[in-house]
Amino acid sequence: MILYSMPSSGNSYKVRLLLALLGRTVETVDVEYDTRALSDAKSRLPFGKAPMLVLDDGTALPESNAILCHLGEGTRFIPADPTLRAQMLAWMFWEQNQHEGVIAVRASLRTYPHRAAEATPERLADLLTRGHAVLQVMEDHLAARDWLVGDSPTLADICLYAYTHSAGEKGGFEMDRFPAIRRWLDRMAALPGYAAL
Amino acid sequence: MILYSMPSSGNSYKVRLLLALLGRTVETVDVEYDTRALSDAKSRLPFGKAPMLVLDDGTALPESNAILCHLGEGTRFIPADPTLRAQMLAWMFWEQNQHEGVIAVRASLRTYPHRAAEATPERLADLLTRGHAVLQVMEDHLAARDWLVGDSPTLADICLYAYTHSAGEKGGFEMDRFPAIRRWLDRMAALPGYAAL
Repeated sequence: MILYSMPSSGNSYKVRLLLALLGRTVETVDVEYDTRALSDAKSRLPFGKAPMLVLDDGTALPESNAILCHLGEGTRFIPADPTLRAQMLAWMFWEQNQHEGVIAVRASLRTYPHRAAEATPERLADLLTRGHAVLQVMEDHLAARDWLVGDSPTLADICLYAYTHSAGEKGGFEMDRFPAIRRWLDRMAALPGYAAL
Repeated sequence: MILYSMPSSGNSYKVRLLLALLGRTVETVDVEYDTRALSDAKSRLPFGKAPMLVLDDGTALPESNAILCHLGEGTRFIPADPTLRAQMLAWMFWEQNQHEGVIAVRASLRTYPHRAAEATPERLADLLTRGHAVLQVMEDHLAARDWLVGDSPTLADICLYAYTHSAGEKGGFEMDRFPAIRRWLDRMAALPGYAAL
């Protein structure tokens, strides 16, 4: 297998974090957004985006959360119980539909020079409000739970950790408002094998 | 089981379409956006959104694509092959991240009276351009294939059918540009058990 990974991207970090927690190493090609490596790889990346995993049979698998599901199959990070598995997937679809497009996008507007022109005060303010509402959904859910689904970490936690753990520093969100998220982030960072971005 | 379903919503239609194709009936509560039924149900809907499936043990399962995965388990719409299954999930995550927020959002801005104030010419023009790019990804993929993944319809086709089949009429996208999508839509509508929106 070969993993095409963008070092600065939370979507790529999800895959690297799962591999670290599993103690697995996979051949990795870094394709940072501002490097020749990305343009060289574009024709090989389905949808033109990293991360992408090339399977042993040559299949190119895009989409961070689909890669998590594929690599997580048969491991402790996917619950055996069908209901817990469905709830795990629900958080992962929610992440792509409600969380990533706000939390990750505000971070990218603030940190990627090639997106600076889009970072108008109105857009940043709108994303700040919407992002705090998104984070409040997680805060309310985690207030009485250690993990998003069931009694142990799943792919849902790995998926949502990626952009949430840097939402303060990169995204400029007010993380002091979310103490349950803070404790959950700490639990994630204490997992055996954990690797920082 | 009880399905909370919004009749006008493609996300809810996905679930109704899968049930129809499987020949299953599930007790359904309609929660249309402009009716009392939705506000009455809000406190029971995780994330405040339909569709939502209440399982027999009382678990509330949100997110259309997670509901598809749960109801599709063990049926012909989820491939047994792990690689095909991962590719199916990739299209479903792509749908929530790249497709729904453009194709469905433009349709909702044009058809829901309560969103008319957001439907500025600039926003509609931007969504038109982005939507055509999203549809082109599907067009290129379907040009040489009958189905999105493998040799038979999967949850990926059901998922992407929902908002794509109404993208012309509701979203105002120029579907004449996409003949391979047109043929795929026809194949979907010819499946045994198919039910229109």
